[in-house]
Amino acid sequence: MTIQSVEWKNDAIVILDQQQLPNEIIYEHLTTIEHVWESITYLKVRGAPAIGIVAAFGLALWARSKQSNHLELFLDEFEKQRDYLASSRPTAVNLFWAIDRIVKKVKRAQSVAEAKDLAVAEALAIQKEDVQTCRRIGENGLSLLKDGNTVMTICNAGAIATAKYGTALAPFYLAKEKGLTLKAFACETRPVLQGSRLTAWELQQLGVDVTLITDSMAAHTLKTKEINAVIVGADRIAANGDTANKIGTYGLALLAKAHDIPFYVAAPFSTIDLNTLTGDDIPIEERAAEEITHLQGKAIAPAATKVFNPAFDVTPSELITGIITEYGVVRGDYQTELTRLYSNEIETLQV
Amino acid sequence: MTIQSVEWKNDAIVILDQQQLPNEIIYEHLTTIEHVWESITYLKVRGAPAIGIVAAFGLALWARSKQSNHLELFLDEFEKQRDYLASSRPTAVNLFWAIDRIVKKVKRAQSVAEAKDLAVAEALAIQKEDVQTCRRIGENGLSLLKDGNTVMTICNAGAIATAKYGTALAPFYLAKEKGLTLKAFACETRPVLQGSRLTAWELQQLGVDVTLITDSMAAHTLKTKEINAVIVGADRIAANGDTANKIGTYGLALLAKAHDIPFYVAAPFSTIDLNTLTGDDIPIEERAAEEITHLQGKAIAPAATKVFNPAFDVTPSELITGIITEYGVVRGDYQTELTRLYSNEIETLQV
Repeated sequence: MTIQSVEWKNDAIVILDQQQLPNEIIYEHLTTIEHVWESITYLKVRGAPAIGIVAAFGLALWARSKQSNHLELFLDEFEKQRDYLASSRPTAVNLFWAIDRIVKKVKRAQSVAEAKDLAVAEALAIQKEDVQTCRRIGENGLSLLKDGNTVMTICNAGAIATAKYGTALAPFYLAKEKGLTLKAFACETRPVLQGSRLTAWELQQLGVDVTLITDSMAAHTLKTKEINAVIVGADRIAANGDTANKIGTYGLALLAKAHDIPFYVAAPFSTIDLNTLTGDDIPIEERAAEEITHLQGKAIAPAATKVFNPAFDVTPSELITGIITEYGVVRGDYQTELTRLYSNEIETLQV
Repeated sequence: MTIQSVEWKNDAIVILDQQQLPNEIIYEHLTTIEHVWESITYLKVRGAPAIGIVAAFGLALWARSKQSNHLELFLDEFEKQRDYLASSRPTAVNLFWAIDRIVKKVKRAQSVAEAKDLAVAEALAIQKEDVQTCRRIGENGLSLLKDGNTVMTICNAGAIATAKYGTALAPFYLAKEKGLTLKAFACETRPVLQGSRLTAWELQQLGVDVTLITDSMAAHTLKTKEINAVIVGADRIAANGDTANKIGTYGLALLAKAHDIPFYVAAPFSTIDLNTLTGDDIPIEERAAEEITHLQGKAIAPAATKVFNPAFDVTPSELITGIITEYGVVRGDYQTELTRLYSNEIETLQV
């Protein structure tokens, strides 16, 4: 079964509402850019690559619906819409990468009509490329593992967080294709439970032997079960390799190190932001207290409890064994290697 | 406000049902030893010292209700009831300590009537002593802190887990008495949420500035907030200092070490089990999958998800900065120090 998180339908974007999983599989039609903004902010679409894809389609949707014959005014407004979508979530860099890519493309247009076509075409290209990117991440990730290995992960960096295959979960899809067996331990990932609601569900769909634990059980599990690797996704990777990902990732990296278990970050190249020098420069989104004090609308803590609710944390690069990208596994001096990779990519694109 | 978790009423034991907190404050009357067994197994009474207290009263309750004139048969059956209560939970050693203390005392009786009186008197003595013990733990713990300090904790080792004051939370009560200010970060403590439901609630009752976080936020919080110490309770401390406590504690100890923050275990001497040589010898209770897959009766994971649900983990002694007991703070070579403390206590008791 392949679940598609985001689909372009010309006059609408169809999304899988990930807040309703696993209890209900509900597809929602987004018909305005405001709907797209809300779908990102309220986590209906989540996962850095999927956020980039839906935001790109969001701009295409706005462009298509805009009545205008004046290219300059159209482009001015287009950039404002880009800024509006950029305000939906602050941490994942793929969001900015995708909408900036659309803006750059659209600026080449000679007419409003062409601009509209370019926006749609570029958004579709971003989605299509992500399939191939994730597949390569899966191949590169799988090369680090052996048949029968067990991998621990946090949050959901799976197919539904991307166009297909996922990033941290991509090796599971590639393993299936090749007839290899990988087992998984999924940390439930409080507060929003992407691990239990999404990763456990997604890996079950794929037929993977997955065991669910609470985040608090990670240390004991790493110590007592045979875990061969921890693989996580990323929302933004700084130039020095410091990586922002779902809250809990940094702790998991420290625990993996304490147990001598390799800790990998799996992410497309678009997650690397060379303009962000170190993890200290990554803005960390803080979300509503209710995510912690309530679950499915019911209170699980005293009323008016004071809460600290950062949605992400930063794992320093020295805790990361390797960064699995579509171009290969980056190791060692991330500062040098990521910059080199970037230069190569630019060259490749210019050929 | 002082909340009493267990109260002896001659023909019943009144307990505060901690599974209902913080939404409802419900006191329940236990009138049979089976009720007592269930109250422990189903976590209505929890916290190592409180489990010991309610189990001691459970034996007293059984003794009082038993119609018998035959001392030997009575004592035989008394020991069977001891074994029955011992089966309620496997990890906390205070349970075994308390019921064995009652058995030992009752064996001195010359008649069934005296045995009954001794059982009740000894259970009351255990409860009364625990108040003083926890007060001393609070004083000794507070001596490690400064006015204005912030302490992180996991689970609930508070007043409701003991006769009064708690163990890990006892310094907060003593600080209040002395007009000092301590702030707290409470880890919510999945899966049963003793941190959000109990610790946040208890510290709010006490007027302490407490901030709730998910367990997955501990690393980021230790890195970014000024946390002066981590203090946790214990369910069993082995002869070498290895400590079993609520699942998540071991990870927290590793994270504290990574951030150079002192990590203290606070526990009465009755939690130390010299017959358990190391942490490897402590049985770790595994509980039902539903604790993780469901919350307040509602599914939060796919049906039939495979789960690993250990209720405790073991923190190796080398990660423990000090063990705060009623006799002082034990540091360094735990093997030697704990044995010395035990010999001293035996001497004191024999004086």
